[in-house]
Amino acid sequence: MKKSLMAVALIGAFAGAAHAQTSVQIYGTLDAGIIKRSGQTLNIGKRSANTLGFKGTEDLGNGLKALFQLEVRYEPDTGTVEVGGNGAQRPLFQGQSRVGLQGDFGMIRIGRGLTPFHETIGAFEPFHAIPTPGGFYTDLSVAGYSSQPLDPNGYSNNRWSNAVWYNSPVVSGFQLNTAIATKENNGGAAVIGRGTAAAPQYPVGAEASANPFSVTATYNNGPAAFMAGYERNAIESKVWSVGASFNATPALKLMGTYTKQDQEHTRAINPDTKSWVLGANYTMGPGKVLAGYGQKDQDGLQKVKQLSLGYEYSLSKRTYLYVDASRKKGLTTNPSTVNHYDVGVNHSF
Amino acid sequence: MKKSLMAVALIGAFAGAAHAQTSVQIYGTLDAGIIKRSGQTLNIGKRSANTLGFKGTEDLGNGLKALFQLEVRYEPDTGTVEVGGNGAQRPLFQGQSRVGLQGDFGMIRIGRGLTPFHETIGAFEPFHAIPTPGGFYTDLSVAGYSSQPLDPNGYSNNRWSNAVWYNSPVVSGFQLNTAIATKENNGGAAVIGRGTAAAPQYPVGAEASANPFSVTATYNNGPAAFMAGYERNAIESKVWSVGASFNATPALKLMGTYTKQDQEHTRAINPDTKSWVLGANYTMGPGKVLAGYGQKDQDGLQKVKQLSLGYEYSLSKRTYLYVDASRKKGLTTNPSTVNHYDVGVNHSF
Amino acid sequence: MKKSLMAVALIGAFAGAAHAQTSVQIYGTLDAGIIKRSGQTLNIGKRSANTLGFKGTEDLGNGLKALFQLEVRYEPDTGTVEVGGNGAQRPLFQGQSRVGLQGDFGMIRIGRGLTPFHETIGAFEPFHAIPTPGGFYTDLSVAGYSSQPLDPNGYSNNRWSNAVWYNSPVVSGFQLNTAIATKENNGGAAVIGRGTAAAPQYPVGAEASANPFSVTATYNNGPAAFMAGYERNAIESKVWSVGASFNATPALKLMGTYTKQDQEHTRAINPDTKSWVLGANYTMGPGKVLAGYGQKDQDGLQKVKQLSLGYEYSLSKRTYLYVDASRKKGLTTNPSTVNHYDVGVNHSF
Repeated sequence: MKKSLMAVALIGAFAGAAHAQTSVQIYGTLDAGIIKRSGQTLNIGKRSANTLGFKGTEDLGNGLKALFQLEVRYEPDTGTVEVGGNGAQRPLFQGQSRVGLQGDFGMIRIGRGLTPFHETIGAFEPFHAIPTPGGFYTDLSVAGYSSQPLDPNGYSNNRWSNAVWYNSPVVSGFQLNTAIATKENNGGAAVIGRGTAAAPQYPVGAEASANPFSVTATYNNGPAAFMAGYERNAIESKVWSVGASFNATPALKLMGTYTKQDQEHTRAINPDTKSWVLGANYTMGPGKVLAGYGQKDQDGLQKVKQLSLGYEYSLSKRTYLYVDASRKKGLTTNPSTVNHYDVGVNHSF
Repeated sequence: MKKSLMAVALIGAFAGAAHAQTSVQIYGTLDAGIIKRSGQTLNIGKRSANTLGFKGTEDLGNGLKALFQLEVRYEPDTGTVEVGGNGAQRPLFQGQSRVGLQGDFGMIRIGRGLTPFHETIGAFEPFHAIPTPGGFYTDLSVAGYSSQPLDPNGYSNNRWSNAVWYNSPVVSGFQLNTAIATKENNGGAAVIGRGTAAAPQYPVGAEASANPFSVTATYNNGPAAFMAGYERNAIESKVWSVGASFNATPALKLMGTYTKQDQEHTRAINPDTKSWVLGANYTMGPGKVLAGYGQKDQDGLQKVKQLSLGYEYSLSKRTYLYVDASRKKGLTTNPSTVNHYDVGVNHSF
Repeated sequence: MKKSLMAVALIGAFAGAAHAQTSVQIYGTLDAGIIKRSGQTLNIGKRSANTLGFKGTEDLGNGLKALFQLEVRYEPDTGTVEVGGNGAQRPLFQGQSRVGLQGDFGMIRIGRGLTPFHETIGAFEPFHAIPTPGGFYTDLSVAGYSSQPLDPNGYSNNRWSNAVWYNSPVVSGFQLNTAIATKENNGGAAVIGRGTAAAPQYPVGAEASANPFSVTATYNNGPAAFMAGYERNAIESKVWSVGASFNATPALKLMGTYTKQDQEHTRAINPDTKSWVLGANYTMGPGKVLAGYGQKDQDGLQKVKQLSLGYEYSLSKRTYLYVDASRKKGLTTNPSTVNHYDVGVNHSF
């Protein structure tokens, strides 16, 4: 009985799964380059999201699997956890922290991660959903929509904490992806909305006025793929989108999206924002050209236009060099036109 | 000599142990579920502690081993490092960060980790020491005692920074577990104690008035196990506890603890808090029922009573589903009775 | 086409490199001991930097390699990310976060890491560049120089964010190591310099007035090694250093450095600080004696003198015990003489 007593005494002491090393995969991306933007000094930064992840699956028998994934996001130029626009650090596992089950029924997961809307639309964006302002993913593709306006200031706009995800299996080319979040407040600032600064529509500590949910459907038929998506956030802004991609030749892929955001619940006037993005990817040996053009139009008040060109040169399946040039016009910032150039390296592990 | 010069020039550049990948085990737990508590919106959260750990041992010969363990704690619903009751983030390696040696003499470690008192009593708690308020571990089992009242606000109550641990080998069923901490202040708030708000007994930045120490003994004899423990913290609160468990049948385990906390050093009146918890675990195939009842009584001023029922269904040795229902009465909060329900999944890797 | 549609729908969902587990090495150090310094209570802390790192290389063919390295720094006594002198937490990957390419041309990397000046001089310091105040590395060896005075308060003094590194190959015993940083402000406090508190020379948010750069050359010839280095930081302080080491016998290594810092750009008077350190390492079986003496002299205004003795006893190639005694005199703090003693264990994994 010595062994069991040791177990009694040393719980937590040096315990842990003996199977550990076989069930965890470590993966990630380190992307860094040199960036020049209008009005900024030359700087070093990222083009893609930088990740360090831990994940695994466990076979439970009968086609059932348990799975988990934890994904650190970080800034390689400063070594910090990923920071938001306001300089505040995001969660350690900003990428995602989810656990779930997968089987014939599909996949169900719980935790924090990308919403289905943001996840799906990313597959129809010509810069493959990288967050650089030289691409379209974080702004034009989604018509400026934010998935979580009640999160702390500077958090990303395309993720939910406190949510449950369900992805259907693929049936005859169709797949359904859904998520629903709780009404929990995550510690964000107030949202004035239709209220006043003294009495904001969503005060500090407000819970969601309705459960946020997100649903997308995808259909794949030979060289063509289609998507449709709809999402409602914690302050009842709504967004919908349709998109398509087409492999015109083995080397050339064309794609486009149309998106409309409705902020009627918090904006008395001009609540609608529409956007469209057209893009192409062209592969030439180890090289790949990325090109896109898009517009975002807020009820005619503001019209943003963006043209972006990129080139990726693969040194291997895991490592490529890149260079981009992008122009965005019609911004309300000063200057109203911003040029963005970058050159760098992306390494996956 | 080229090689050695390279070594001179590139220290830190791309150095690191070539043996690395063979000596580190990665392990962890991801537990998430849906929780409903009285007075709160439905939320997503954890039942168990969530960990991502790195550990290893090195054989030094002659039965001696070096060992280390680093354990990240996190919140899967938001992806952040584990947060305390006040929303403040705890240390990255909240679980533990210790290094030490193990041999015939036992095990000696240095760093941060659970105190022996908290570690040992957890083995006699019917919800196997998970921190959910639906269990007894963090409050009733320890009579509301905190191991480190001078830590920053929101830090956990069952750990020490700046301590040395010694665990004896198991001899004829007996084992001794001890730790002693330095008097270092860890940056916590003031403790008014027998002072005043203007002149607190332990002002901000105060060091411990005595070295905290913790000692437990365990004895295992066939189906029965016993424990006795004593601990004193940085502000000289004392706690002692006795506990026992008994495997009545292979499927049924009974257990109980009695604990008394003495806060005489910082409280002029009503310094004593007593508690007891009785519990049972009953295994039925892949299912396991957890049941417990306990009381915590602060000198007759306040009497908290808790009844908890849980059920765990194992999908494998590493993954189980759970559902709990718990009622806690006699709280000084409003409402004074809190019901707690949860359902979720726990996956170890 | 089911498979590719799944890929469309689930981008980011549970993606990640299938090759992951083969390309990442985990490594690190856990060092903890008991420290007594003049004027402080006995405390538990570190002697060496504590690391948990992830790194890998990828063979790209033709002698070209891609490489990355991410290195967490932490405090084992409290489990936190590494903290600065002011108690503020440093970046998660304080050690380094870099990605790059290596080939016949040398190695080029981008991100955050030690400057070449600090990296190279560490190889000529008798306590092998450990950051304990019982050694010379962080103060006397570099004449009190800081590489990044515009970083947030409490950040380390020997690293750059937002930089590019180039290390040449070793040719006939020579190697060149260089880095250049952008002018980006990293969120540090103001530097008064030759200004006033109301109008500091470098206000909050100031960018560097010139691109920081660092260059060192090393030469190795049999038992002898030499270095020369020069660096300029964001506020145009300059530092240069020469150093040498000599293996007098297989067991005895002698070393020394001379360093001069010039702070003329921000100091009207007494801008020069000079320092020298002499040291020796003597190996006796599993034991190693470290000894050093040095002085730092700021234009005759302040003269710091330090004598340090250490002993390391290896239990294996990865684990050693240590004990140190050090005295530092002439400080402007009270007391002006500080004794430092420590004893502990260092384990690499």
